[in-house]
Amino acid sequence: MSGDLPSVVALSGGVGGARLARGLHLHLSPGQLACIVNTGDDFEHLGLYVCPDLDTVLYTLADCHNPGTGWGRRDETWTFMSVLAQLGGPDWFRLGDGDLALHVERTRRLRSGVPLSVVTRDLCASFGVASALLPMTEAPVRTLVHTREGILEFQDYFVRRRAAPVVTALEYAGATDARPSPAVIEALASPALEAIVVCPSNPWLSVDPILAVHGLREALRDRGVPVVAVCPLIGGRAVKGPTGKIMAELGLEATPAAIAAHYGDLLDGMVIDETDRDWASRCGLPTAVAQTLMSDDARRVALAEAVLRFARSL
Amino acid sequence: MSGDLPSVVALSGGVGGARLARGLHLHLSPGQLACIVNTGDDFEHLGLYVCPDLDTVLYTLADCHNPGTGWGRRDETWTFMSVLAQLGGPDWFRLGDGDLALHVERTRRLRSGVPLSVVTRDLCASFGVASALLPMTEAPVRTLVHTREGILEFQDYFVRRRAAPVVTALEYAGATDARPSPAVIEALASPALEAIVVCPSNPWLSVDPILAVHGLREALRDRGVPVVAVCPLIGGRAVKGPTGKIMAELGLEATPAAIAAHYGDLLDGMVIDETDRDWASRCGLPTAVAQTLMSDDARRVALAEAVLRFARSL
Repeated sequence: MSGDLPSVVALSGGVGGARLARGLHLHLSPGQLACIVNTGDDFEHLGLYVCPDLDTVLYTLADCHNPGTGWGRRDETWTFMSVLAQLGGPDWFRLGDGDLALHVERTRRLRSGVPLSVVTRDLCASFGVASALLPMTEAPVRTLVHTREGILEFQDYFVRRRAAPVVTALEYAGATDARPSPAVIEALASPALEAIVVCPSNPWLSVDPILAVHGLREALRDRGVPVVAVCPLIGGRAVKGPTGKIMAELGLEATPAAIAAHYGDLLDGMVIDETDRDWASRCGLPTAVAQTLMSDDARRVALAEAVLRFARSL
Repeated sequence: MSGDLPSVVALSGGVGGARLARGLHLHLSPGQLACIVNTGDDFEHLGLYVCPDLDTVLYTLADCHNPGTGWGRRDETWTFMSVLAQLGGPDWFRLGDGDLALHVERTRRLRSGVPLSVVTRDLCASFGVASALLPMTEAPVRTLVHTREGILEFQDYFVRRRAAPVVTALEYAGATDARPSPAVIEALASPALEAIVVCPSNPWLSVDPILAVHGLREALRDRGVPVVAVCPLIGGRAVKGPTGKIMAELGLEATPAAIAAHYGDLLDGMVIDETDRDWASRCGLPTAVAQTLMSDDARRVALAEAVLRFARSL
């Protein structure tokens, strides 16, 4: 861990966001990155408190993530799930044997009264991750997906139903009563802060829950440093996940301009993919063009550098 | 599962008791064996409800036990413990990845309000075990080990301290307020019942907690069928575990006569090992001599047959 004050605050959900967070993590000095992570997907499963986005970012920064799945650990074993299925237990949400240790240890500490921010800080230390991972809030915020088939809990929609039901609206239950966690406030107060980066996670499913926490969007907007998003679309599609599908279902075109319009006055600028360079002048805010496909660490670092260079130019 | 009424009720703790329970299970027809199992060792660990003796008996009857350790499953993986240790979590109580599924599933169902007897019945069905495993009570009974180093919780004494502290007394906290579980009462009411077998588990650590449950000893005694114990000592020592050590610490000689005296008027007869045949006439109750070392299923079945033959002769 480092005593350095954060110079960059990133907002992240799962896979895509975690990849850029890793680029920033590798590019910056230890302690310079603070990542505000969506906890709207968190849920209790099998009596365990599971934080899918926090875990994906943690595993990705610690370089023990499973690049094939986008969730869970590399070199995992699956004995637990196999026996659980034999016992007739619920096996629709896959938990690897090593992954399980994280959930058990976190749940144990939460039950003993330790706040999620503190548990997460200690987990980062255990994994040797010097960047700060900050749950957006200590309060329970739950993303509810309104669909043509009714209102679904997030994991029910996303994992069990494989994001198939047609989305009509999103709800972030508890968000108006929630407040940013103290560690989030502290990171935003860092005098060293140079930029706020909205990572290329799904705006509706992963970033909006963060922005819905009472006062958080305003705190980001009013901080007085450039706020830059990386567009989660490449050629009208997300690299992974249902962003394009959800936009269509909500009656939106899957374009960089629609993403920029969605974030509205939060952003000072947006980075779009080279594939979409024709949109550079049509998003209604300053844009930069870069390779946003982050298939390896070199590309993740290159994108992180491009994003910060762009932010400094604004 | 079978609709047969139990003809034999066995009392069992962990390893030694489970081996004879397996012999009885293999020898009898499906459904004829009901096993009352010690829950005084049960404890909550890592937020999970762990029942060491129920699990040992279940795994042994299901033939998926680990013969090397006396606890846990065969062909187990250990990824969970390995990661938990990396996270700084408590790793003194070893839980294998497959074993963990049992604890998670049981805990999940107990938290939803299902009684331990019902959860255990369903687990037996999942494992294809037709014998009935009956927790001695639904109430929390906790074996506390009074030692020269203070009062220790059971697993603290047995696992963490490896039974090293000198025992001065045993306490079964909660036993006087506990009542036999309904399934225990029902098994003892079976009109087909021919014998009650006290398996060769540690009398002080494993069998006495069962007998301490309010009314249970009397219910066994008053049932009117022969009650036969298998002596847990062979040549003054237990095959596994600290029975001999504890007897010495309590000022008792580790002999079949001392075991018989300890159980007192509960017993109608006792089976002792061939090694101890000189004690046959000196135990103050009818005895039978048999090979009590149960190193394989054939020996377990042979001992079960010998015990039931002896019981019928009384």
